[in-house]
Amino acid sequence: MFELKDRDGLARICELTTRHGKITTPVLLPVVNPNQMTITPREMREVLGVKALITNSYIIRETPALKSKAEKDGVHALLDFDGVVMTDSGTFQGHVYGDVNVDHREIVKFQASIGSDIGTILDVFSEPDFTREECERATEETIRRARESTEHKGQMLLAGTIQGGVYPNLREKCARELSQLNFDVHPIGGVVPLLESYRYSEIADIILASKRGLDPSRPVHLFGAGHPMVFPMAVLLGCDMFDSASYAKYAREERMMYSTGTRFLRDLHDLACHCPVCSKTSIKELEQMTKAERTKKIAEHNLHVCMREINGIKNAIHEGAIWELVEMRARAHPALLDALKILKKHKEYLERYEPASRNGAFFYCGPESYDRPTVSRYQERYFTRYRKPRTKVLVGFEEATKPYSRTLSNEIRSISQKVDASFIVSSFFGPVPIELDEYYPIAQSVVPKELDSSVKERINKVMEKHAHTHGYPLAVMWEGRETLDFLEEMVTGTPHPFDIDLLRCRAVLDMQFGMGAGDILDSGNVHIIVPPRTGKLRNVKIDGVHVLSMRAHDGRFTLKLDGARLLMKALPAPRMRVKTEDEPAEFASKGTNVFAKFVTECDTDIRPGDDVMVVNTRGELAAVGRALMNREEMLSFKRGVAVRVKDSPD
Amino acid sequence: MFELKDRDGLARICELTTRHGKITTPVLLPVVNPNQMTITPREMREVLGVKALITNSYIIRETPALKSKAEKDGVHALLDFDGVVMTDSGTFQGHVYGDVNVDHREIVKFQASIGSDIGTILDVFSEPDFTREECERATEETIRRARESTEHKGQMLLAGTIQGGVYPNLREKCARELSQLNFDVHPIGGVVPLLESYRYSEIADIILASKRGLDPSRPVHLFGAGHPMVFPMAVLLGCDMFDSASYAKYAREERMMYSTGTRFLRDLHDLACHCPVCSKTSIKELEQMTKAERTKKIAEHNLHVCMREINGIKNAIHEGAIWELVEMRARAHPALLDALKILKKHKEYLERYEPASRNGAFFYCGPESYDRPTVSRYQERYFTRYRKPRTKVLVGFEEATKPYSRTLSNEIRSISQKVDASFIVSSFFGPVPIELDEYYPIAQSVVPKELDSSVKERINKVMEKHAHTHGYPLAVMWEGRETLDFLEEMVTGTPHPFDIDLLRCRAVLDMQFGMGAGDILDSGNVHIIVPPRTGKLRNVKIDGVHVLSMRAHDGRFTLKLDGARLLMKALPAPRMRVKTEDEPAEFASKGTNVFAKFVTECDTDIRPGDDVMVVNTRGELAAVGRALMNREEMLSFKRGVAVRVKDSPD
Repeated sequence: MFELKDRDGLARICELTTRHGKITTPVLLPVVNPNQMTITPREMREVLGVKALITNSYIIRETPALKSKAEKDGVHALLDFDGVVMTDSGTFQGHVYGDVNVDHREIVKFQASIGSDIGTILDVFSEPDFTREECERATEETIRRARESTEHKGQMLLAGTIQGGVYPNLREKCARELSQLNFDVHPIGGVVPLLESYRYSEIADIILASKRGLDPSRPVHLFGAGHPMVFPMAVLLGCDMFDSASYAKYAREERMMYSTGTRFLRDLHDLACHCPVCSKTSIKELEQMTKAERTKKIAEHNLHVCMREINGIKNAIHEGAIWELVEMRARAHPALLDALKILKKHKEYLERYEPASRNGAFFYCGPESYDRPTVSRYQERYFTRYRKPRTKVLVGFEEATKPYSRTLSNEIRSISQKVDASFIVSSFFGPVPIELDEYYPIAQSVVPKELDSSVKERINKVMEKHAHTHGYPLAVMWEGRETLDFLEEMVTGTPHPFDIDLLRCRAVLDMQFGMGAGDILDSGNVHIIVPPRTGKLRNVKIDGVHVLSMRAHDGRFTLKLDGARLLMKALPAPRMRVKTEDEPAEFASKGTNVFAKFVTECDTDIRPGDDVMVVNTRGELAAVGRALMNREEMLSFKRGVAVRVKDSPD
Repeated sequence: MFELKDRDGLARICELTTRHGKITTPVLLPVVNPNQMTITPREMREVLGVKALITNSYIIRETPALKSKAEKDGVHALLDFDGVVMTDSGTFQGHVYGDVNVDHREIVKFQASIGSDIGTILDVFSEPDFTREECERATEETIRRARESTEHKGQMLLAGTIQGGVYPNLREKCARELSQLNFDVHPIGGVVPLLESYRYSEIADIILASKRGLDPSRPVHLFGAGHPMVFPMAVLLGCDMFDSASYAKYAREERMMYSTGTRFLRDLHDLACHCPVCSKTSIKELEQMTKAERTKKIAEHNLHVCMREINGIKNAIHEGAIWELVEMRARAHPALLDALKILKKHKEYLERYEPASRNGAFFYCGPESYDRPTVSRYQERYFTRYRKPRTKVLVGFEEATKPYSRTLSNEIRSISQKVDASFIVSSFFGPVPIELDEYYPIAQSVVPKELDSSVKERINKVMEKHAHTHGYPLAVMWEGRETLDFLEEMVTGTPHPFDIDLLRCRAVLDMQFGMGAGDILDSGNVHIIVPPRTGKLRNVKIDGVHVLSMRAHDGRFTLKLDGARLLMKALPAPRMRVKTEDEPAEFASKGTNVFAKFVTECDTDIRPGDDVMVVNTRGELAAVGRALMNREEMLSFKRGVAVRVKDSPD
């Protein structure tokens, strides 16, 4: 029911299929209170383009007039809305009023009976001030009820809410258990009190703990999150759905929502917004309206702003710029900055979902940018995959204009004519061998000239580690002509020819596919094609056969089938392989994409965007293609493409 | 012709009066090319609400049909626009084509003759790659032409463009010389090539150098800056006017402007914008239009986005949140972050314009926030104005929930019952005596729990300086009960009663009005009123007379006339005084605000928002009020209020 369409790390664009049509996530479901409609569902659909909303089945059930209408004509008729209707269960009312007057099975049956598209179980709201023991009990009860609830879902999709209070371990455990049950959506519950008190760091921990425990193919709904300020970070951490009662609640308090915070109408000098409401209405006109009219207008504005932010987030996912968006938006409140900072604890987990490369550049937004998985991945791969060349000398350069090999070409030529040298740049990302200068994210990054001192220190540490682990016989920093004179005196013997193209092929192969991949260059006669017009490495032939093409935008190889044949020998199974059943492998060999549901195994090192080898049950090569998912995702998604086939025998 | 209405540091909201009405700055003037109107001026007015635009008098003069129409009916008729029309002179054409075919006096006369509201001199575009000598010659020539041009302005306002290339000294010198001449607006010229290559740090230096040289009462126009990305920082640095040809130029390239950058239409998945164009048009519809229609729609979008950003900037000025806006927007490009970083060089200059306090809180946005003038001002005043109490012990606390005196009240009570102690918090802003905990910006600040390590180091340095300069007989860090036991053993003698309210009065008086102001509390019987409901210091009476009220929102005093009488004795002239001619002083004593044009002298220590004493030529107190300007501004503005009178004899 849930299909991955595009992604940027855990942030993803998916399609959720319901009985009332498909919705694209991330999505915001406005909350409709059937007793008090600030904006009617019909207006939401017609004026705001809302395709899905959420209402409260408990309120409907407790209000006789609503109950009988809903039971007779269904919840869609009750609301006069033909889009997707999700229903909540009364858990939040339990949180507010202490208890609710309904059995957990009954409320699920009721939701199914009124034709809700997505119902929700009656879980136990775990309060932030619960002790661990209280939380454990509440979570156990939630799981027990969840188990009993799935039997009654019928045709309805069912949301199994993850509880566990502020204890990440409990959240992860709860998520893991609920993943085993027949649920279609997983709300993360109990976060409203945390949202209200700006406890965003804890929310970030809770979301990530829940994600770790969850089946990655299930949509995640951050229950009660309805302020655009929190959407970008929540999406970055893998949330797909939101719901907002705030748009109306804030409107009643005459508060205008913006992606950068909330303002009282009375404090504004200009609406400074060009949503359809604000571009047609002045502050003065708003003030002259009746309270009810004004509330409605502000509510519309608030929804417009929320929905615009969701659309901006989608754009950022398509662009590969979700980190940049989150880091910019985190300036809306210092508590968001705190939440951004705790993400470094989760770097290894986030890295597993991080795309191999992006269309857009890496933009530095602050010291936090150094904790993005892109940075740690480059460094980790450099230290574990890059093979130090056996030259007599290492010459280091300071950060320079990119691509480095072009800026420093004169220096490199002069030195390599005299001595047997390798070259490295001490860059933002740490040590960058000159031959990796076009490999993502090195050339595709924009960093300030003056870095924050804390980042400078961290770079220095990486360079020190480099000095310790990659000891060279002789290492010097380039200081102009003097360095050349010094080298000529110190280093004797004939220099090896410095062939940056060959070095580049080997280094990129190892960095991209894993240590040892570069050995395929020893298997035959290598011919590297560098069109003089661009001066950029384009194609690689071995023994006359085209095996690799280098992509200009990320400096990584597109693998040809013949290249994969060589790579199969250099990298023993299961490395860089996606294994499928035999029939889909057969289809792949004819050019059909590989669907996730057919994948039986996948290398843990594969990342979204990687060029991978599709193999059958016997491990024989069927095709090569681009992975859209990592292992965890391929093994759990029931819909959608896991590998887009790029080259195949037929 | 130019009146200050509101401000946040150098960022200001002003009113510029022209023959075609008043415009509120900051303002963006769309560029209209009379030969190629992507959007007609009438549409700009009617659809976009544009009140002022800029066109090129050189192009009009060189195009016979346009010239004769403009000479006959005027430039407003030519453009079919009844708002404010500014005209440019051909300088930019000189930059592009190498030379222009007109005399500098002729083009000014021509602009006046066609009825331009604001004409521009034909200055010499100083290119970024000019040597210092070339730049000096070009600047000299600009000044020479400027001098000759003013004679021909007639009824027209005239813009005298500041040149000086990338040399701040030349910019400042040029600005200083042009300030002496009869100009009404000062464009900063020659920055387009810098804008195009993201050299924002240099632009920041150039703007500030120009501002230093300029008469502060003249509006500043950043010539050719038309991207919303740069507006916030330019306004922060004191720019009032912008012009944009980019909205149309980018549209022709199918590029959509956003406050966070520019995107090609083809790269967008969603317009993610709710401007009147985007909320009515889908990407698909845009793509299906003719090139001309599409260009027009994108141009409209671009203008909407620019104008919305200007409105958002105005809101931020009203709110006192311009730094927060700039620091957030600086995440749009690392080069903007670089520009933000160089502002620390200009901290002293910026501090002179920085308001005494704000309505809004100080929000931390990143390590750069520590370089805001608010931070350095607090520290500077603490070290020069705060008088160390003569207690036997100083007890230090770590950062705590604000206000500190409430959070730490139990500890303070326990200690002060036993020993003669003062109390200090090691806060984000450095050392905060407990009695200053409600003084702006201490209580009115929101900082993350985890600070960047570079900021932590800077705080440590301030605390070390405190230890050196404010040595106490005994200083301890609070570590709970142990500290109390230790103090009881070490310190003998009867403790003085710890009277936080009296300490607060003295400390705030010194911090706010200057060292010595606190002595007024020794002049009689002090009665401090703290309503039990709020627990916050409210009023101060001396010998039964109400002299001071404390404002809840910034913890600073509102000065009553009777308080000022005491302060006059404690602080010798000219401290905290604004001197006016006798007649306006007489009016002030009857409650009339003091206009800037009547101010003859002003204390250099007065900052916008300060409570000041208005005195006549003999230095006699006429009234007390709130300064809206600093000394430089009071002495240069010809219009507008300098001091809003708050208390006066009549």
